[in-house]
Amino acid sequence: MVSNFISSHGGSIADANQHSDPTCGYFFMRVEIEAKTLPFSLEALREAFAPIANSFSMDWEIHDSNRPKRVVLMASKESHCLADLLYRYHSEELFCEIPCVISNHEKLRSMVEWHGIPYFHVPVDADNKQAHFDKVEELILEHKADAVVLARYMQILPAGMCDHFPHRIINIHHSFLPSFAGARPYHQAHERGVKLIGATCHYVTEDLDAGPIIDQDVTRISHRDHPEDMVRLGRDVEKQVLARGLRWHLEDRVLVHGNKTIVFA
Amino acid sequence: MVSNFISSHGGSIADANQHSDPTCGYFFMRVEIEAKTLPFSLEALREAFAPIANSFSMDWEIHDSNRPKRVVLMASKESHCLADLLYRYHSEELFCEIPCVISNHEKLRSMVEWHGIPYFHVPVDADNKQAHFDKVEELILEHKADAVVLARYMQILPAGMCDHFPHRIINIHHSFLPSFAGARPYHQAHERGVKLIGATCHYVTEDLDAGPIIDQDVTRISHRDHPEDMVRLGRDVEKQVLARGLRWHLEDRVLVHGNKTIVFA
Amino acid sequence: MVSNFISSHGGSIADANQHSDPTCGYFFMRVEIEAKTLPFSLEALREAFAPIANSFSMDWEIHDSNRPKRVVLMASKESHCLADLLYRYHSEELFCEIPCVISNHEKLRSMVEWHGIPYFHVPVDADNKQAHFDKVEELILEHKADAVVLARYMQILPAGMCDHFPHRIINIHHSFLPSFAGARPYHQAHERGVKLIGATCHYVTEDLDAGPIIDQDVTRISHRDHPEDMVRLGRDVEKQVLARGLRWHLEDRVLVHGNKTIVFA
Amino acid sequence: MVSNFISSHGGSIADANQHSDPTCGYFFMRVEIEAKTLPFSLEALREAFAPIANSFSMDWEIHDSNRPKRVVLMASKESHCLADLLYRYHSEELFCEIPCVISNHEKLRSMVEWHGIPYFHVPVDADNKQAHFDKVEELILEHKADAVVLARYMQILPAGMCDHFPHRIINIHHSFLPSFAGARPYHQAHERGVKLIGATCHYVTEDLDAGPIIDQDVTRISHRDHPEDMVRLGRDVEKQVLARGLRWHLEDRVLVHGNKTIVFA
Repeated sequence: MVSNFISSHGGSIADANQHSDPTCGYFFMRVEIEAKTLPFSLEALREAFAPIANSFSMDWEIHDSNRPKRVVLMASKESHCLADLLYRYHSEELFCEIPCVISNHEKLRSMVEWHGIPYFHVPVDADNKQAHFDKVEELILEHKADAVVLARYMQILPAGMCDHFPHRIINIHHSFLPSFAGARPYHQAHERGVKLIGATCHYVTEDLDAGPIIDQDVTRISHRDHPEDMVRLGRDVEKQVLARGLRWHLEDRVLVHGNKTIVFA
Repeated sequence: MVSNFISSHGGSIADANQHSDPTCGYFFMRVEIEAKTLPFSLEALREAFAPIANSFSMDWEIHDSNRPKRVVLMASKESHCLADLLYRYHSEELFCEIPCVISNHEKLRSMVEWHGIPYFHVPVDADNKQAHFDKVEELILEHKADAVVLARYMQILPAGMCDHFPHRIINIHHSFLPSFAGARPYHQAHERGVKLIGATCHYVTEDLDAGPIIDQDVTRISHRDHPEDMVRLGRDVEKQVLARGLRWHLEDRVLVHGNKTIVFA
Repeated sequence: MVSNFISSHGGSIADANQHSDPTCGYFFMRVEIEAKTLPFSLEALREAFAPIANSFSMDWEIHDSNRPKRVVLMASKESHCLADLLYRYHSEELFCEIPCVISNHEKLRSMVEWHGIPYFHVPVDADNKQAHFDKVEELILEHKADAVVLARYMQILPAGMCDHFPHRIINIHHSFLPSFAGARPYHQAHERGVKLIGATCHYVTEDLDAGPIIDQDVTRISHRDHPEDMVRLGRDVEKQVLARGLRWHLEDRVLVHGNKTIVFA
Repeated sequence: MVSNFISSHGGSIADANQHSDPTCGYFFMRVEIEAKTLPFSLEALREAFAPIANSFSMDWEIHDSNRPKRVVLMASKESHCLADLLYRYHSEELFCEIPCVISNHEKLRSMVEWHGIPYFHVPVDADNKQAHFDKVEELILEHKADAVVLARYMQILPAGMCDHFPHRIINIHHSFLPSFAGARPYHQAHERGVKLIGATCHYVTEDLDAGPIIDQDVTRISHRDHPEDMVRLGRDVEKQVLARGLRWHLEDRVLVHGNKTIVFA
């Protein structure tokens, strides 16, 4: 009925993906419509489609791919994921706006400001966690973020904040989850003697490192690699997995169902 | 001193690998000597080298690479790993002897016997576990196995048996350990929504799926893959990881230290 | 209009893929219909759909996924690809029938016949090429093959034979084409000093090793690998790439356009 | 004799690799010595070792790993490889000095100068090629470069310049060589319909894109990827392959023999 609706109004479908999950009985769909082929504004399209969606009990969203999403980046001291995302933004590989970067350290200010992006230093210590996160959340709201990326932010978000931005906070964890959740995953991996290390890009939920996985990848290591080598080798995997996951999110290719994702890549 | 010893007797080194681990202070070494360049028999070589080894407190072994190791294969009903190893043996890709295959089912007898290898069906059920493993161990000893490969054998070995053959029983686990240890790893992986599935080849110890890892690999999956697709895709990873791990073991390329391996591949 | 046609007859779509190529202006589509939801026989479906297809100038085919395709395998002396396909057939991973295996050598007869498949030895030498290929083509026709797989057959097919079975003869070439077309690709790769070797599964056309590519993959090598090591390492890539390509072909997931493929995997 | 020489002077070996090539009869070796365990200055070490080296007709070099190599980067308009190397330099992942960046365009000046590195714009057009390369060579010499990296420089170096810096000019080619040498490799790859695209890091010789290969890698594409998608996906492969190759070069892990490399990674 989706394609019927579109074609009955003269609309042209640029790309379409479907997935039906026999276990849960759900049907998932992503349709890219060439906006200029429709006689509607976005708002009129939503109104016209709503009755159909309701009659089929759809969960649905319509996004304007012409409007760049606003992405707030958060980082600590490690710069590789932040620098990588800034480069991809700057070179227009990622289609988005970055209204600001928030960090609990001063260290990366110069790199960020060179890109013409405001940098907010919001310190955190054991005593001011609540105040820190209140300030962070205020900045996120003030900058009208559509998404928040934890580019190796290294602080555990309070449950309340996770709830306020469901499926909109993206984290990169430096292990192949569910292995080595929590702190110092490369040291855990070294201890266990694994032969591949990885990284996982996932939506943040209140369960630490247990939210819906968007993408993962791995790289090979050997007995010669100390934890510091693994940190170095892992950086390249983290950067790529996070950039790919964010790209899919920005293009509305990631659907979340329960604790899993459907990625129409 | 190892290379001095060899060269002082006119020996020629075909290949050599070293690894020093600053954490534990150990130095690991593998040297391939061209036997015909030494004036010794293997036994005389051992005697001549022993005083040097002792004076440096070495843990050491000398193997004759000309003598094929004897490998007993164990399987249940799943045939892919067994068929793969039999093929590699038959085509002389793996240099070893396979004195017999032991299975708790009759199912794979014809495939094994076509290769000219004796097949022992040793049934197991909840009531006769001890008798089953006594019989298995008897067959292993009787066939003078240098190594035992659990080619998807699917039974948990008793601790005693693990102790009798330290670093000589090789298992293939159908997940990227330490993720999804235990039963039905593909179903666990499906439940968690990971984007890669893997396999792990490791030495069996009494801690289930926690022994020293020899090799691992992964393959990409998507939301479209049901557990049965993951089983199918995983088979190819299992086969390759097990064959590679066994090959390294047969060529004495795997050194075990604590719960980790040094693989001079 | 395809989905309209199906739904207007009460049909249910199990899976659907589309691809539009702006360069050539073509639109490609693969639809899996649940046969039992349609009130048609396959033949009636073809008749009902033909007018629609014609009015849109479609190139189209309808296949019954319940009917296993008939695949004739051809091999020379190298057994790895043949053994791999026979295993996947035997274990019902590949849904097809194998009416016979044709080889220019006797060597692999026993392996094939163990699987209950007739084996035809059709010798070839410099003087009888035409007679050889006449006999081969006769066997292919006699066994009503839907597809022919050159599982390392190592003979160049005459142009005429390629024309008789367009997009129905699948070859595995042991290099990452277009690198190292022609003879002894692993030796060519060794000579050039590449760091990865690969394999390519493609449809056979009269241009040697230049037909539409179905799938490719690579594996890492190093300076330590002699051509014979590359042969060994390459075998695993060849097996996997051929099996994957054949699987997609059997499931009608490969569309050929010009000299390229659209693979709805 | 190398290890004898070192140990006879009380030296300690931190790492050692050997490779013997039976085809050419050469033996290749890389030894890392802990400098402080030797009673020599670097110069005295060279003098003491020279007679031994000569008596065995060795080609040999001794490098001080404490002294960062000086690397001149060259780029055109594409920034991804340059930005990646600058980041790895800035974050001290790559141990080197970058005395300057040379480009035939102004475009990347601000990015380079933010890193505190001088930027030389040396324009080139069809009429001034010789003058351009004379100026480039002058800058390379003036900045005492140990190595030159063509980070997507896009101009073909004159043969003379290649000869002046043998095995010291590193290029990244955006294809899996020897496939698609020359111009517009992604468009060539799209034309041929390959299923993987790659990148190759190699030393520059006067034969275009035919010098000794240091490293290569690939990434998967599909029929949906237009040349511009391949450009985007390929950038990540190019960056990683170039950074890895340069790292190995900086650590003197790459030995060149004929037109091939031995990489003691």
